[in-house]
This record gives sequence, structure tokens and C-alpha cells, in this order.
Amino acid sequence: MEGTSEAGRRRTFEARYDRLREALAEAGLDAVVASPSDNLYYLTGFRSEPDERVLLGFFPLERPAALLVPALYEEQVRASGWKGRMAVWPEAEGPKPALCGLIEELGLSGAALAVDDEMRADYLLTLMEAARPARMTPASAVLGQLRVRKSPEEVELLRRAAALADQALEAGIRACRAGSTEREVALALELAMRQAGAGGLSFPPIVQSGPNGAMPHQPPGDRRLAPGDAVVLDFGCRVEGYCSDITRTLCVKQPEPELERVHRIVEEAQRLALSTVAPGRRAGEVDAAARRHIEERGYGAAFIHRTGHGIGLSGHEAPYIAPGDDTILEPGMVFSIEPGIYLPGRFGVRLEDIVVVTASGAERLNQAPRALIRCGG
Amino acid sequence: MEGTSEAGRRRTFEARYDRLREALAEAGLDAVVASPSDNLYYLTGFRSEPDERVLLGFFPLERPAALLVPALYEEQVRASGWKGRMAVWPEAEGPKPALCGLIEELGLSGAALAVDDEMRADYLLTLMEAARPARMTPASAVLGQLRVRKSPEEVELLRRAAALADQALEAGIRACRAGSTEREVALALELAMRQAGAGGLSFPPIVQSGPNGAMPHQPPGDRRLAPGDAVVLDFGCRVEGYCSDITRTLCVKQPEPELERVHRIVEEAQRLALSTVAPGRRAGEVDAAARRHIEERGYGAAFIHRTGHGIGLSGHEAPYIAPGDDTILEPGMVFSIEPGIYLPGRFGVRLEDIVVVTASGAERLNQAPRALIRCGG
Repeated sequence: MEGTSEAGRRRTFEARYDRLREALAEAGLDAVVASPSDNLYYLTGFRSEPDERVLLGFFPLERPAALLVPALYEEQVRASGWKGRMAVWPEAEGPKPALCGLIEELGLSGAALAVDDEMRADYLLTLMEAARPARMTPASAVLGQLRVRKSPEEVELLRRAAALADQALEAGIRACRAGSTEREVALALELAMRQAGAGGLSFPPIVQSGPNGAMPHQPPGDRRLAPGDAVVLDFGCRVEGYCSDITRTLCVKQPEPELERVHRIVEEAQRLALSTVAPGRRAGEVDAAARRHIEERGYGAAFIHRTGHGIGLSGHEAPYIAPGDDTILEPGMVFSIEPGIYLPGRFGVRLEDIVVVTASGAERLNQAPRALIRCGG
Repeated sequence: MEGTSEAGRRRTFEARYDRLREALAEAGLDAVVASPSDNLYYLTGFRSEPDERVLLGFFPLERPAALLVPALYEEQVRASGWKGRMAVWPEAEGPKPALCGLIEELGLSGAALAVDDEMRADYLLTLMEAARPARMTPASAVLGQLRVRKSPEEVELLRRAAALADQALEAGIRACRAGSTEREVALALELAMRQAGAGGLSFPPIVQSGPNGAMPHQPPGDRRLAPGDAVVLDFGCRVEGYCSDITRTLCVKQPEPELERVHRIVEEAQRLALSTVAPGRRAGEVDAAARRHIEERGYGAAFIHRTGHGIGLSGHEAPYIAPGDDTILEPGMVFSIEPGIYLPGRFGVRLEDIVVVTASGAERLNQAPRALIRCGG
């Protein structure tokens, strides 16, 4: 975000729309249609939780942008600084008349539309009917390209978000005592981030103890931490919408030997992946560096996910650091490096930091120590 | 949910699927396709945050249900108690081969599919391509009918969630002091709900002071409460997935006369709407009772939303208490009654309680006092 002045903000959004128009033209598309999401925020500065009332932003190649807004949100859209066209639909009438009118006005009947990847299906079906026979493709193909290269201002916000997460980790470590529940530890992490000034969470904190650690996205539950448990903490928060995301693995008191060994392998894999990052390298090479090491150490089948994901306004966005991915890394790309090893019924280990591609290599945004953390001792 | 035993849970899901099949047959549809959402939870007990990895539940009329699951979620789906068919897609391969295989296996090519209203557009576009030329309609048309009538066990969970919100209101009132920011009050509400044992929030708490109150869905910001401000608190939490949702309007110290008058009108409108609720009445009649009163008192144009929404596993679901809605109310339906008056640039007032339709009328699930609350005094 370019400064905080109204004029500066507006210039930022105009510059983004200019680049979006270039990407649309290049892809042979007529417009992006965004729903309440990080994409809409990126293009307008307006943010809201999506609900069942259709709210859409139209960003055509050849006409000015326009928003379709439920009456309930009209004031809120104005307060966000939006000065463009707004087609407001009254609650008693439903969105269809205003939507059809707007599509006609923008010349988008039968157009090639790039729709927000996160758009709700009920919005999309309504849009498809109104713009029939439009062709729809996911907007990430064009918007992802724009959002993938972060400006220095964006990197600074990501750095601040990472620092808040690093700081909250200490509260998480303190909360990991034998007898605590996963849910209690998650609450301690959340509180620490919010009290430190985070504008929200990137996602609800993940706290997985013992065998739960082998289910990478399992939400925290009532399981109580016990001595010898590995505990995976994976969490992050937002600063002006920009996300952090960090994972550390702890052990309550004394780790079993295999846990120590597995953690060491994951640390080495992360280091190898990090040392592969440089402009011109392919995302798949970074993944391969981590994966090869884990395979060589005999845990290949236990590394069940990609090595990383881009991060910015969304917790997960391009570039994806996945097997065979041939995205060429460029300065300003920001992503996680988070190898993991999951042993069902026993434990999981994951180690995640956010890195930014620099002119010559990579820089970590997280500063927290990376070794297996002993806690509750 | 029928008891907490594994067998009881399984019977609950089987009974729901049986009713879903009846609804599908009646609507001439071949299957429901759900993504991670309240619908999927309602039908299987599995819950996860949707991410960019396609995860879909297929509930066909004529074959057993099956899930399409990213490898990363396989253990988590098993841990949720799912015993049915699972088509797992490996991260390196992407979802398409497994998805196409599953659609063929289930005979859903070219079928009439009811898709989860909240399904992400990127999932839906992938599904449309794989099942082409399938016809898609929103699943709320069939699933809404099932979910709209709550069982006594579901009402009990909604009652417990309402009680937690009532209790958190007191913490919210204490936090509303001149000089506090909206964000601080929101954090106090959230903490109170989570520490009281809520399983999560229904939605991020809304705290709107002074003129912000005229933007009903504006998120809390850094505005500091000042004497004379009206403050709208709108929040809720979950118990076993079931939501609460309550709104109260406070005034920091002395209210201006119009605020008192407007609040009285909103209270009367809510009471009139409540007294209209009974089996056999139409949803639109309940809306009309509140709306007519507010219009008669001269604030018709300032009541910019419907009178209420159903609530259950989703924060907003059928029935909608909206102008002209001809849904016939039945015992076991649960919804909000929340008239409001919004004066742009000045203040907003809203009063919301959850009610359940009984055999003879309605019962409030919220017990908190309904008068304008003085705080920070």
C-alpha cells in the first residue's frame, strides 16, 4: 500500500487496475469479477465477510470498474473510499435486476470472465445466468500474476506480521504444559497475536499434540498434552490484511529418539530448500531439494504435502512450491518453506518459515529459533 | 445430534441422508455435492476450513455417498468417523483424475447436481468440467428444507450457544468505556465467549460506535468510544457447531433524546414481530409486523435490511424473515428477529434475539435484557 494518504491509496489501486488490464488483454479475457475476498480488497481496499447477499466487483478491460452492492453494504462501501460506479440492490428486490442491468451496461453478456477463485457457488450460478453464455475461468490465472510480486511496502507489512507471530510463539510455548488442552494453547496463541496488535488471524491457530500431529489440518480439540508428546503449532496473523504463517514443533519434556531424528531431518530439509531459493530458479527445484533429502533419509512417504505456498493478502496464494511446478522465482515473491514428516498414530513434525526472494537469494521473515523446542519441563 | 455415541452419531447421519434422498427425488435432482461447509458437517460430521485443495462430498440419490479427499486430509477424514468411500488424490497429481473417476463411478456425468451454496468457484468450475454437461443448482433448495426444522437436540445446542452469548454481553458492556476502541471491545467479547467454552465464533464480533453504527456490517476499527455514542454489539459463538447471534445497542453515558426514541421504536418493532410468530404464519408477516411499525413512526427508509434470518450450523440460513417471503413457519424453525434503524453520519440501533417456533407461538433463546443499555458511566 503506497502510504496511507487517500491520494496515495487511490494511486495504488489505479496502478493495480492498469496492470490487471494488461494481464486481461494478454489472456484474452474481458473482465475480472471479484466477490468479497482478498482480490476485491487488493483492487479496491474494500473488505467484508462474504454472506449470502450477492456483492460483486466488475473490473472490465474496456470500461471503468463497478460494484454490485446490497443496500445493507452501501454505506460501508462508501466509507472504504470507493468513488466509482455502484449498482445498489434493495433487499426486497433481490440482486438479479441490478446485476442484469450492470452486465448490460458493462457489455459483459457472453463475455470471457475471470471469476474470483473463492467466489461462492450461489453467486457464480447467479452470475452465469445473468451473463449467459459467458465463459468463466478462475481469476487466479490473471490476478495471481499481479499479486505474486510484492512491493517493498507489501514486504514490510509481511515482515511486521511475521514479527508478531514470532512474538506470539513465546506465549504458545509457555502455554504448552502437560495437562493443557490443544484448545487452550490455541487460545493463548490467538490472544498473544491480537493483544500485540494483529488486525486479525491468517487462519485459526493449529495446535496438534501427539498422534493428532499426523493430521496436518486437524483443528485443535480437547486432547490434553502429555509428557513425551510432540506438539505442532501452526499459526499466523494479519497486519493491514497481510498474513504471517509460522510452524514450530515442540516436545513436552523428553522427546523420544525418533522424534529428535525426524526433527533434525526436517530442519535439514528446510535449510536445503532455502539455499535453493534464488531468482531464476523454479519453484519445483525448491520443493525437490526438501523432498529429496527426506526421501534419502527414508521418510519420503511421510511427507504428504507440497513444500510451501505463497502468502500475501491470502494465507495461501501463488507461487506454490510443489513437485514439478515450473514457476520461475523472481525478487519480491514471498512464500513458506514448510517440510513435514507425519507418522500416523504417533506424531507429526513440521517447520515453517516465510521467505522473500531477494536479488541474490532469499531472506527469512521469521526470526524464531528453528530447533525442536522443549517445553513444560 | 443424537447422543454422542458413535452408533448414535452414525444413525443421525443416516437419517439425514435418507431425508436428503427424499428431497432429491422430489426435486428431480441426482445428487448433492458439498464442499467443506456446514452442509458437509451436517451430512457427515466432518469439518475443515476450505482451502484451494479440492475436497468434495458426493451424496447421490441412487448410490452410496463418497468423498473426494486431498491426501493431506485423509487421516483427518478417517478420524472424523467417516466409514464410506474415499477417493484420495495425491498432491503431485492434482484432483482431476480422481474426480473424473469418481464421477464415472457414481454415474454423475451430465447429471442434475445440487451444489453447496458456499462452494468455492474454483471447485465448482473444476466440477463442471469433470461432470459436463451437468446442470447445477444451489443445494440450499434441498438441504435448506432439511436443516430448517431443528430437532430437540439441535435446539438444545442453540440454546446453550445463546446462553454463552448472553453471558459474554456482560463482558462487552464492561469493556464499553469512553476511550476504549471498537477493536478492544470486540476482543473482550471474543475472549468472554471462548473462555466460557464456546467452540468458536459464529462470526467476528461487530462493534460499531457512533456513526459507524449506521453501517450494519462494518468491522470493528480503531475508533474510540466517546460519551453520547450509541454502540452496536452484534456477536455470537458456537456450541458443537451450532450458532448464536445477539445484538444489543448501548449508550456511553447519556443518550441523546432521538437515540432513546429510536431504541424504543426498535424494541416495539421486535416485540410486534415476535408476537406474530406462530406455526402456520408466513415469514413475510413477521417481517411486515416490524416494518409497518417502524414505517408508521417515520423511520421506514432507515430500516435497510430484512427482519431476520434462520440460524443453525450456519450463522445465516433458511428461513429468511424478509418482505413478502411466503415460507410457512413450523415448529422447530429457529431464526433471528432483529429490526434496526440506521441514521447515516449519526448512529445505528439494532436489537436481535434468536427465537424458536413452538407448537403455539415462539420462545426466545436469548435472555439478556432488551432495553437501551447505559455503559461507561
